[in-house]
Amino acid sequence: MTNASPIDVAWMRRAIELAARGLGSTHPNPVVGCVITGRDGHPAGEGFHAVAGGPHAEVAALRMAGDRARGGTAYVTLEPCNHTGRTGPCADALIEAGVARVLYAVPDPNRQAAGGADKLRSKNVHVEQGLLRAEAEAVNHVWLHSVRMGRPFVTWKFATTLDGRSAAPDRSSRWITGEQARADVHRQRAECDAIAVGTQTVLTDDPELTVRDAQDRPVGRQPLRVVVGDREIPATARVRNDRAETLLLPTHDPAEVLRQLDDHHIRHLWLEGGPTLAAAFLRSGLVDQIVAYVAPAVLGSGFAAIGDLGAESIDHLRRFQLADVTRLGDDVRLTLTPLEQRTH
Amino acid sequence: MTNASPIDVAWMRRAIELAARGLGSTHPNPVVGCVITGRDGHPAGEGFHAVAGGPHAEVAALRMAGDRARGGTAYVTLEPCNHTGRTGPCADALIEAGVARVLYAVPDPNRQAAGGADKLRSKNVHVEQGLLRAEAEAVNHVWLHSVRMGRPFVTWKFATTLDGRSAAPDRSSRWITGEQARADVHRQRAECDAIAVGTQTVLTDDPELTVRDAQDRPVGRQPLRVVVGDREIPATARVRNDRAETLLLPTHDPAEVLRQLDDHHIRHLWLEGGPTLAAAFLRSGLVDQIVAYVAPAVLGSGFAAIGDLGAESIDHLRRFQLADVTRLGDDVRLTLTPLEQRTH
Repeated sequence: MTNASPIDVAWMRRAIELAARGLGSTHPNPVVGCVITGRDGHPAGEGFHAVAGGPHAEVAALRMAGDRARGGTAYVTLEPCNHTGRTGPCADALIEAGVARVLYAVPDPNRQAAGGADKLRSKNVHVEQGLLRAEAEAVNHVWLHSVRMGRPFVTWKFATTLDGRSAAPDRSSRWITGEQARADVHRQRAECDAIAVGTQTVLTDDPELTVRDAQDRPVGRQPLRVVVGDREIPATARVRNDRAETLLLPTHDPAEVLRQLDDHHIRHLWLEGGPTLAAAFLRSGLVDQIVAYVAPAVLGSGFAAIGDLGAESIDHLRRFQLADVTRLGDDVRLTLTPLEQRTH
Repeated sequence: MTNASPIDVAWMRRAIELAARGLGSTHPNPVVGCVITGRDGHPAGEGFHAVAGGPHAEVAALRMAGDRARGGTAYVTLEPCNHTGRTGPCADALIEAGVARVLYAVPDPNRQAAGGADKLRSKNVHVEQGLLRAEAEAVNHVWLHSVRMGRPFVTWKFATTLDGRSAAPDRSSRWITGEQARADVHRQRAECDAIAVGTQTVLTDDPELTVRDAQDRPVGRQPLRVVVGDREIPATARVRNDRAETLLLPTHDPAEVLRQLDDHHIRHLWLEGGPTLAAAFLRSGLVDQIVAYVAPAVLGSGFAAIGDLGAESIDHLRRFQLADVTRLGDDVRLTLTPLEQRTH
């Protein structure tokens, strides 16, 4: 990015803000925001991608801008697509509207959709990429990771006492954490496309695996429920109710689980356990984020959140980066990411 | 406290600041700060109790004030003593100096030293108590708790992985946490009078149990080292070296441990484990504070920080209040206090 002015930075920042409004509802698409300024530099239109099948950010912004887009600039958080899906290519829409200059933050990693920048240039639109790229990547972090890796981004979530117990000796575990932590889990579940547990967890806890509100009622769009393992799940299990779709995957191989979920266009898998499933994903190096809710409580016996990882001495400790610490009521949420950050 | 002005509040706050300078060095005495203003209201002297056997705060402040104390006001964080120990009663010193008014924050809970306020009043000094009492109690929290309970205040400290492992299957545990967390342990040890471990921990880890600086060198005053249990400790054990005093207590009864430490004038016991000793103290309800260092790491097997507490179901969870969460480098320190706060 060479010719960005402070005004360009401000409009791109606004586009990123707009993009963030789509978080949790654009599945399996990325979030995208767009601002269009007219030939005179004044804002003419803005928009964001709100839901898959709905208008892309550029189209929403162009609709608002109307004729004022002609000779103007479009600020887009992601490279405009060159792909006809449920909507036409955004590159074409920008060309038809007569936009003279397009600044986008992040190149589209999706081979199917990329090529927008080239098409724009071929029609003499001035195109630059990379303005506020890091910020724009952050808002689309999970989606970008998923497309680049060719598999869902995996978040392993667990709740634990301070002495590492996620269930008592009789396997009871409700509730280790308090209301605010549990509400946070539902907020985070809502931003995922799928929630997975092992068959043992279904048989022990009979979880519903839905996103629910403070009154414990299921909310709008529900992530796909995924049950991994080959044990029989009774027809009466809550996970089989009609409040969300459910996928049974009779396998023990995390890579195979992710392959099948990729076929279902899952971008973000929220892995809730139990210990055997979590250990299998961790051993396979397929955990991209850990979200742990730690309660200020001690149990002294019971079950850990994670099964055996083959560690014999402290040298086998698996270290992560502490990305965030947040107090939630009387509990603490720790967010961990892998130590080796892949460079894109 | 009825007649305190904003100026009184300001001077008492200064006295509390002064008191805090003594933290970690006044053992077995409390920390105390004192400000003296002259008849004209201008500051005349200030002082704090720095070390047992040294001058009390009031005496230090009176020395600085000299004649200007006559007709003035003394602000003291703790009721002036009426006790002749290694120094004379502070009540007498204030009377002799001609101080007209004494405001103190916290009444002395120590039966031996109390009575200072009554003596001052008998000599027509105007005395009031309670100004900024909560703040002044906080700075002397551990000492007050110890004197009121008639036993040392007990802090149980442990380091753990996020999945609750304090040692690997081969009992190795160095190092779970990073440099900043370990430096914090030494800072906190330095404010205690004694550090206790069980014999198993001595035999397994051979800890030195001293307060050391960043270069791992022992610093000034060292807390008493206490080894609890009746297993034999080899003569070569580090805990037997000459860098600090060591007390061997061949018992398993936490109440008996605290009784013996009280005889040694221990106000603050720093309990470092292992799991058996920690469980015994927790079961006896004799843990006043938990300081846990949580590393962003997962082990999957090994030993927990705490032994069996008899919990069978989640209803037996021992809950605490989350008093503080602090990030220390890549680790997190959680400070917990009992849920039922005793009212004094």
